Amino acid sequence: MKKIAVLTSGGDAPGMNTTIRAVVRRGIFKGLEVYGIYNGYRGLIDGNFVSMNLGSVGDIIHRGGTILQSTRCEEFKTVEGQDKALTQLKEKGIDGLIVIGGDGTFKGAEQLTAQGFPTNGIPGTIDNDIAGTEYTIGFDTAVNTAVEAIDKIRDTAASHERTYVVEVMGRDAGNIALWAGMCAGAESIIIPEVDYDAENVVDRIKKGYERGKTHSIIVIAEGVGKGTEIGKVIKEKTGFDTKVTILGHIQRGGAPSAYDRMMSNQLGAKAVDLLIDGKKGVMVGLKNNQVINTPFKEVEKEKHKQMMDLSTYHLARSLSI
Amino acid sequence: MKKIAVLTSGGDAPGMNTTIRAVVRRGIFKGLEVYGIYNGYRGLIDGNFVSMNLGSVGDIIHRGGTILQSTRCEEFKTVEGQDKALTQLKEKGIDGLIVIGGDGTFKGAEQLTAQGFPTNGIPGTIDNDIAGTEYTIGFDTAVNTAVEAIDKIRDTAASHERTYVVEVMGRDAGNIALWAGMCAGAESIIIPEVDYDAENVVDRIKKGYERGKTHSIIVIAEGVGKGTEIGKVIKEKTGFDTKVTILGHIQRGGAPSAYDRMMSNQLGAKAVDLLIDGKKGVMVGLKNNQVINTPFKEVEKEKHKQMMDLSTYHLARSLSI
Amino acid sequence: MKKIAVLTSGGDAPGMNTTIRAVVRRGIFKGLEVYGIYNGYRGLIDGNFVSMNLGSVGDIIHRGGTILQSTRCEEFKTVEGQDKALTQLKEKGIDGLIVIGGDGTFKGAEQLTAQGFPTNGIPGTIDNDIAGTEYTIGFDTAVNTAVEAIDKIRDTAASHERTYVVEVMGRDAGNIALWAGMCAGAESIIIPEVDYDAENVVDRIKKGYERGKTHSIIVIAEGVGKGTEIGKVIKEKTGFDTKVTILGHIQRGGAPSAYDRMMSNQLGAKAVDLLIDGKKGVMVGLKNNQVINTPFKEVEKEKHKQMMDLSTYHLARSLSI
Amino acid sequence: MKKIAVLTSGGDAPGMNTTIRAVVRRGIFKGLEVYGIYNGYRGLIDGNFVSMNLGSVGDIIHRGGTILQSTRCEEFKTVEGQDKALTQLKEKGIDGLIVIGGDGTFKGAEQLTAQGFPTNGIPGTIDNDIAGTEYTIGFDTAVNTAVEAIDKIRDTAASHERTYVVEVMGRDAGNIALWAGMCAGAESIIIPEVDYDAENVVDRIKKGYERGKTHSIIVIAEGVGKGTEIGKVIKEKTGFDTKVTILGHIQRGGAPSAYDRMMSNQLGAKAVDLLIDGKKGVMVGLKNNQVINTPFKEVEKEKHKQMMDLSTYHLARSLSI
Repeated sequence: MKKIAVLTSGGDAPGMNTTIRAVVRRGIFKGLEVYGIYNGYRGLIDGNFVSMNLGSVGDIIHRGGTILQSTRCEEFKTVEGQDKALTQLKEKGIDGLIVIGGDGTFKGAEQLTAQGFPTNGIPGTIDNDIAGTEYTIGFDTAVNTAVEAIDKIRDTAASHERTYVVEVMGRDAGNIALWAGMCAGAESIIIPEVDYDAENVVDRIKKGYERGKTHSIIVIAEGVGKGTEIGKVIKEKTGFDTKVTILGHIQRGGAPSAYDRMMSNQLGAKAVDLLIDGKKGVMVGLKNNQVINTPFKEVEKEKHKQMMDLSTYHLARSLSI
Repeated sequence: MKKIAVLTSGGDAPGMNTTIRAVVRRGIFKGLEVYGIYNGYRGLIDGNFVSMNLGSVGDIIHRGGTILQSTRCEEFKTVEGQDKALTQLKEKGIDGLIVIGGDGTFKGAEQLTAQGFPTNGIPGTIDNDIAGTEYTIGFDTAVNTAVEAIDKIRDTAASHERTYVVEVMGRDAGNIALWAGMCAGAESIIIPEVDYDAENVVDRIKKGYERGKTHSIIVIAEGVGKGTEIGKVIKEKTGFDTKVTILGHIQRGGAPSAYDRMMSNQLGAKAVDLLIDGKKGVMVGLKNNQVINTPFKEVEKEKHKQMMDLSTYHLARSLSI
Repeated sequence: MKKIAVLTSGGDAPGMNTTIRAVVRRGIFKGLEVYGIYNGYRGLIDGNFVSMNLGSVGDIIHRGGTILQSTRCEEFKTVEGQDKALTQLKEKGIDGLIVIGGDGTFKGAEQLTAQGFPTNGIPGTIDNDIAGTEYTIGFDTAVNTAVEAIDKIRDTAASHERTYVVEVMGRDAGNIALWAGMCAGAESIIIPEVDYDAENVVDRIKKGYERGKTHSIIVIAEGVGKGTEIGKVIKEKTGFDTKVTILGHIQRGGAPSAYDRMMSNQLGAKAVDLLIDGKKGVMVGLKNNQVINTPFKEVEKEKHKQMMDLSTYHLARSLSI
Repeated sequence: MKKIAVLTSGGDAPGMNTTIRAVVRRGIFKGLEVYGIYNGYRGLIDGNFVSMNLGSVGDIIHRGGTILQSTRCEEFKTVEGQDKALTQLKEKGIDGLIVIGGDGTFKGAEQLTAQGFPTNGIPGTIDNDIAGTEYTIGFDTAVNTAVEAIDKIRDTAASHERTYVVEVMGRDAGNIALWAGMCAGAESIIIPEVDYDAENVVDRIKKGYERGKTHSIIVIAEGVGKGTEIGKVIKEKTGFDTKVTILGHIQRGGAPSAYDRMMSNQLGAKAVDLLIDGKKGVMVGLKNNQVINTPFKEVEKEKHKQMMDLSTYHLARSLSI
């Protein structure tokens, strides 16, 4: 292993730059040459490579986004696309590849490994929905962003008989909604993993109102439905003025939190070390406070369920009575 | 002038607590007794007064919201409501009143003054749409909140051929949208004061795309229309994926910025000093870096136009080519 | 178990308010009466109790500091002091006690339990130096505060041949320094757990300079020595202008991070549940992503070593070449 | 006027990047070619120029520091240095120059103009000590940074009989200390412009203590003396535990505030427009909410005194009783 390359793929997440930096610096520290590939698998097919040195990753440890950029690439899902990629890697003399991204990213990485090219993965997505790790890089930052936003709404909430609906990201996974709702003290949390019961949400609002609470904050994962529509339903059933916030892509940006940077450093370095040690076709992750690795196949098979454990959801409810 | 009272009214704004603190402390410094009135004009009618000392306003200089709360009150718009208020003020032995709020707040204050009760006003609203002052308390904080949100979107914007629409507050006034858009480098800014031209917005997006820009950020004031609808139009006309953020009440909360706190201190103290000096029926404000005062009547007559001066709007356009 | 009380003791930490809220709400949810005790063990001796309801902990989930305040109390270390405390608890009809704090706090709690009064503990300290838990409440927030500060220094660092020394908290434990230094990309990290070698620090600065780096950031734990003095040494040996920042008590304040709030909720609720289940004399903690509990005796015996594991320190060095 | 160049000089300030962006974009909008000069006057002498297009200033509107970097340059103070600079400008075909910086920067700019080269200046320094403008670019951000830091100290201050000393920047000018102290509600503010009276500071602390206040926050400008030394004095005279924070270069970094960005846009564009209009040898500034310009000579002659007006200082004292 003399030359490795790194790319980011899929939706970007805070901490991707920290991870790129860790991969590059750990690689150089271990005596490797490191290349960056622009635009994910698109750039891999097109040969969009750049040689990286210590200075290439200077001043990026705290930047949101990804300096290598990240595009989706349909072509890479085809055998032809993968062949082009393998040709590029061979031409550039690359011996190993590290991909940073989510579920879809690792499917591509599995193909490369299956075709004999050593590839390891690092989980970078705000959704925290990847098996093989307790947390994904970007999740902690996204939750903090959502919590800070809801804190501000709380400031203004105290004056009126009013309900606030905050729609956070999470198409299939309610992790951001559950964490943000619990940490910001939301009265109700609506997530795809638990059947949404409008009556119950309305009951909690009314119950709170009866004991003197004049306002309620509802956090909803985008996967359950539009915040604007649920706001309408609540307004109809409670009569309270209802205001809607849609956080949207704010949650993908911002400087990564300390926790996300620590994970980025640990996982980034480990992915390099594993390649050097001849370990390939695995995603590194964090479990029980240890850096572990899991074959891509297993990452795909199951889904990350840990945060959705009912105890957490019910704890949130017991504290928002 | 021995006893004065203070209330907050209308939509709350960051800095209201700082202003309450300034009024209370300046009053006590000048030898007055100071009362707080809960829930704006509603509490004035109901006699919801509380005696305030230095400790009452301890640890609030940096808190969003208003410890005195703020409710709208239809009854106060009637002569009967105003009579009840005057009776309460007389019964409690109050000699002067300071109201913190927006346009509607000052209409009530004008009535009280007309009926012989010395009342002064302080402009507290995020909208910055009050005549008689260059800035209103809360505007600077709201703009900073919007700018920080758009900065985060910018982090993630670089990767895709995508357009981001950010809806900020401002029903009749585009001040927040103009400032936030200009300070965050938005490609287009859509405000109620300038005719909205969908073609032009789309043209700018396409032009940017042609010179290599892969993303555009559009800031729109809520008064112009729903961000979600404009997002749909842009998507149809450009074919680019379009993501929408609705900031909503986030903009009303958060710790007040330094500038809002400085204004709060200056205007809060001045409103007290004026009452002591026998000056009444005026709103204090900031103009040409000086604290001035304007009769309530004139505050109502004209509208705050300064920020909407075309030069600022056109400057923004010249910088977002 | 019908009535329980809660207090905070020792240096305060972000998340203490979130924890108080969790204890109060979980207690009420489980049908208990909950009392707050002001000023830690001082208030326990003096009988400074207050009955708490759901509203008592409204709007505090995001506040730094502790609404119950926290004082050190020498008297409680004596048998007489403890007897007075037990008398107060009996008189008020309290059946169980929850204490939030650090090492010293749990010594007191152990005495109470030994004397037959059911007491459980929750680790709340920014230092993360408590055995029986991987993280303490407040640590994540303190690290984020330090990281954000260093990020700002990084902005300005690029222009001059200059060294920046940042002194962070940590008298005996280098956890904050290690995490903050690693997450902010510091060139050198100086902690009490590793012998401080001025020559090596200077060498790294010079080496960086030779490969074109014009600036270096050094993070030092206060336990190792004054940042100002180390700044002088570096200046003498490198000739570079050296600027010193002492973060001080900034690290104890601020809104708790999402992670600290999540822990506060989980540990606060668990401490209550354990009391109800008859489990006493234990500190709750987080290990392997599970809420566990450890007898106070064991908490005292060993010291928290996990973060100081050499691999983390060496990883930081490999990434700051 | 066909080609202009821009440089940053002196201590950097948040907003310098926003200003560079405004100069480049306004220049291009007006049909000019724009060059950036690295490392201030040093790069001007050395011919370190780079051609800038719209993309050169993409994604920097919100970045602290200066992409053009900023070095002090002794050589430029000599006639020989200035001659070299003029030769470089001529060789590159530059017709006009814009310099962003403080007092010292404008002395150099005056020399260039005197020798016939059209040069205009923009005030960029956190100290707000420049005549010819009410605010300098960077001041608002630095004050907000200091205020946020003191807010965090306030969180933790409530528990102990303790005094907190916060040293902020300002060698000759107390503007940051006065604003930050006033906006964060400091009990005492110590600035170079007012004689420092240790007895008075101690009296205020004691007086606060007598009326039930257990903590005090003292803000001191670095120009008055070391925060650590003043902390010692206070400790000796009051007996209270005294903790010191030195904010240092944190105040120079961070994303610029909205206000600083607005000023950057307005002043940056105006400096370009003036060059085009044939106006030279002036610094642009903001006065009475209008963009004005002042000959460099007058900028040097007097000092910025506006903020140091006694009324502001005394207002702060009246509110911190």
